[in-house]
Amino acid sequence: MESRKIFLNESEKPTHWYNIAADMPNKPQPPLNPATRKPAGPDDLSPIFPMGLIQQEVSTEKMIEIPDEVQDIYNIWRPSPLYRARGLEKALDAPVKIYYKYEGVSPSGSHKPNTAVAQAYYNKQEGVKKVITETGAGQWGTALAFACTQLGLDCEVYMVRISYDQKPYRKIMMNTFGADVFPSPSNRTQAGRNVLAEDPGSSGSLGIAISEAIEMALKDETNKYALGSVLNHVLLHQTVIGQEAEKQLEIAGDYPDVIIAPLGGGSNFAGISFPFIGKNITEGKNTRCIAVEPASCPKLTQGEFLYDHGDSAGYTPLLPMYTLGHNFRPAAIHAGGLRYHGASVLCSQLLKDNLIEAVALQQLECFRAGITFAQSEGIIAAPEATHAVAQVIREAEQAKKEGTQKTILFNMCGHGFVDMKAYEDYFEGVLSDHTFSDNELKTGLEEIRGLQP
Amino acid sequence: MESRKIFLNESEKPTHWYNIAADMPNKPQPPLNPATRKPAGPDDLSPIFPMGLIQQEVSTEKMIEIPDEVQDIYNIWRPSPLYRARGLEKALDAPVKIYYKYEGVSPSGSHKPNTAVAQAYYNKQEGVKKVITETGAGQWGTALAFACTQLGLDCEVYMVRISYDQKPYRKIMMNTFGADVFPSPSNRTQAGRNVLAEDPGSSGSLGIAISEAIEMALKDETNKYALGSVLNHVLLHQTVIGQEAEKQLEIAGDYPDVIIAPLGGGSNFAGISFPFIGKNITEGKNTRCIAVEPASCPKLTQGEFLYDHGDSAGYTPLLPMYTLGHNFRPAAIHAGGLRYHGASVLCSQLLKDNLIEAVALQQLECFRAGITFAQSEGIIAAPEATHAVAQVIREAEQAKKEGTQKTILFNMCGHGFVDMKAYEDYFEGVLSDHTFSDNELKTGLEEIRGLQP
Repeated sequence: MESRKIFLNESEKPTHWYNIAADMPNKPQPPLNPATRKPAGPDDLSPIFPMGLIQQEVSTEKMIEIPDEVQDIYNIWRPSPLYRARGLEKALDAPVKIYYKYEGVSPSGSHKPNTAVAQAYYNKQEGVKKVITETGAGQWGTALAFACTQLGLDCEVYMVRISYDQKPYRKIMMNTFGADVFPSPSNRTQAGRNVLAEDPGSSGSLGIAISEAIEMALKDETNKYALGSVLNHVLLHQTVIGQEAEKQLEIAGDYPDVIIAPLGGGSNFAGISFPFIGKNITEGKNTRCIAVEPASCPKLTQGEFLYDHGDSAGYTPLLPMYTLGHNFRPAAIHAGGLRYHGASVLCSQLLKDNLIEAVALQQLECFRAGITFAQSEGIIAAPEATHAVAQVIREAEQAKKEGTQKTILFNMCGHGFVDMKAYEDYFEGVLSDHTFSDNELKTGLEEIRGLQP
Repeated sequence: MESRKIFLNESEKPTHWYNIAADMPNKPQPPLNPATRKPAGPDDLSPIFPMGLIQQEVSTEKMIEIPDEVQDIYNIWRPSPLYRARGLEKALDAPVKIYYKYEGVSPSGSHKPNTAVAQAYYNKQEGVKKVITETGAGQWGTALAFACTQLGLDCEVYMVRISYDQKPYRKIMMNTFGADVFPSPSNRTQAGRNVLAEDPGSSGSLGIAISEAIEMALKDETNKYALGSVLNHVLLHQTVIGQEAEKQLEIAGDYPDVIIAPLGGGSNFAGISFPFIGKNITEGKNTRCIAVEPASCPKLTQGEFLYDHGDSAGYTPLLPMYTLGHNFRPAAIHAGGLRYHGASVLCSQLLKDNLIEAVALQQLECFRAGITFAQSEGIIAAPEATHAVAQVIREAEQAKKEGTQKTILFNMCGHGFVDMKAYEDYFEGVLSDHTFSDNELKTGLEEIRGLQP
């Protein structure tokens, strides 16, 4: 009988996070202070982040040691399994070997705790009592709530009002992990009160929620702020995924020709691909790494590489990234984790330098792929994760047409148990694909041209 | 760093299911045909079950080989991990070692697929095209839907109306695995139409749903019926859990003093405990095995050992079991899998012979235990599974009081991602404990005294 899963022992986990900045031929350009348009330094970030994370944010050291206490909490679910997708291979009947890392085994059900635990740890090291964040659909908030309860920190989450009302399960998960969750906009902050004064029924946005979380973090020096993607240190922490996958593939006697992952901010894609991109750069390997974005939020394939804010309100430093403009409002697709206007600085620079590829896929194709995956592999994928499966199917069909062999690795970044409404909408035929009118994508970009240095 | 998880390789999975009937000092009494009150034989069951399962139902062979095709599908999630509960141990600070099997890694999120895959396999072997079942909250229906899609069978599920309306996520999971799901009572069967004629707004019951599924299974000889607990062959298939746990504990150098699992019909409890009870009987081991039932459905602790029907409508053979009477209507607790009036024949006989113990716990204590478990171990347990955790905490506190060492093993039979409403109700204070009035439990028992042979 052919095996389906490859496990590592806890003692075989990576000992270090991998920092791709050390290997990149063109280093990422620095973030800019929005007031001065000068490079932003550690001091610009220290009011909201602990110094341990700021050091990682700007580090060019190649390998950064993972602290013991973080490793001990990682052991709750890591190393995650690597699956050989025998069911999917059979369903596709193509000349491909398909492997996937399954990050849905984590406490919150996705890859997010890999960085949440690390961030909570460095906050605790510096005497922080409470970590504050925002969350959209709730994956990131759940991960941070879990990490804080493990490390004995308080956790406060500003959850976008419309998700707070429509996705109550995620809120209750955060409560179960001991976090306080407030719908945003709230009356607890000036930013929230300003919005509510203008629009008492506001359904909120990630931009507003970020503003509220940052404002609360600045109020008390024992509080800090945390972010779940986009920043360099967040991507760094996720590289345990790719490093484990490499060891597991070695056990299987394989090495990937293609790596595929969805890209929202970039941490999921970075997590599985960066260790392999490093080998492409330093060891002459030749793995294609494909970031998959939703056709309704196509910053990589239709955006531009420009300086832009990370948040809608324009409070964050200016980051050099592929973006649709920070005021771009993506359609309300169920893959909430992919509805972000920009891509992380590291992923953007890699795309600019042709070291990674990008494709944009429509949601109906992704849900069809998700159902094929559920029936063949027994895992109901989060809507974000179905984007990777859809691209895997495309690669397999291409290989069949060409008669070429391929080994594909992808990141099954989370399960969909809390997202079943998305599948229901698909079955009921109420979802549709997305097309933009001629000038629709230009507006957001025109708005930010004035921000360039 | 101390390890938290013990994995086995796929090739180390048990090769056989363990049939406790072979080792029991008093064999289970036979089921009776309700019309003749004579022992029911294979012929009584063959219209609704395939012969392969009927043979297992009546077998006294000690070890029954697991077919290769079943093993291959088991490999999707088995062997399941054994966790050393280091977080919970730290939270309890008692002289106990705590281990748990985690069955939430399965495709449906509980132990149910262990038998669903086996049942689908034997149906397929005998040319069955469609397997039909009922489901309450949806765990069993999801497991059977998954098993059928893996084996290329059609699957039809009658879901109790009130759950169909209140727990839409489970229905969509079944759809995603390719099953057709109908709310029960439905217009598709005479049994359903009869109920609807009297009460067009009926919210249904498991009894009605069983009747509908059996009626549909009898309509076409290429259809069969399937049950998710109670029957001997169902319990048999679950013994992979305990056999794996024994191997994993051996790796840890441990053997359990106490085993704890929730008991609804009995398959979860049987799965983890039967292999160890076998060693108690045949090798003089001395592991206490404790079945935990909800205080609102106390068949083991307050019911009687009598012949009774397995379903409310009285269509099934009479089974010798601890029961509250088949018309007993348990309170609408969230632990839907524990709301069953009787206990399986095998578990009942073992309790009668003092080979197992039973306790009944109130739900508020169980939810408190569930929150302690989530925060310390990172797993949000299904409401059913919190009953095991609560009893583990009692045992730990007892050990602390007595100053004795104990090694405890329990079955974390499923995650609670689709049950977050239960935790919300707990947090909002709308749940309460349950007490019975003096005669309340006697009525159901009086009704069935006339059924005795």
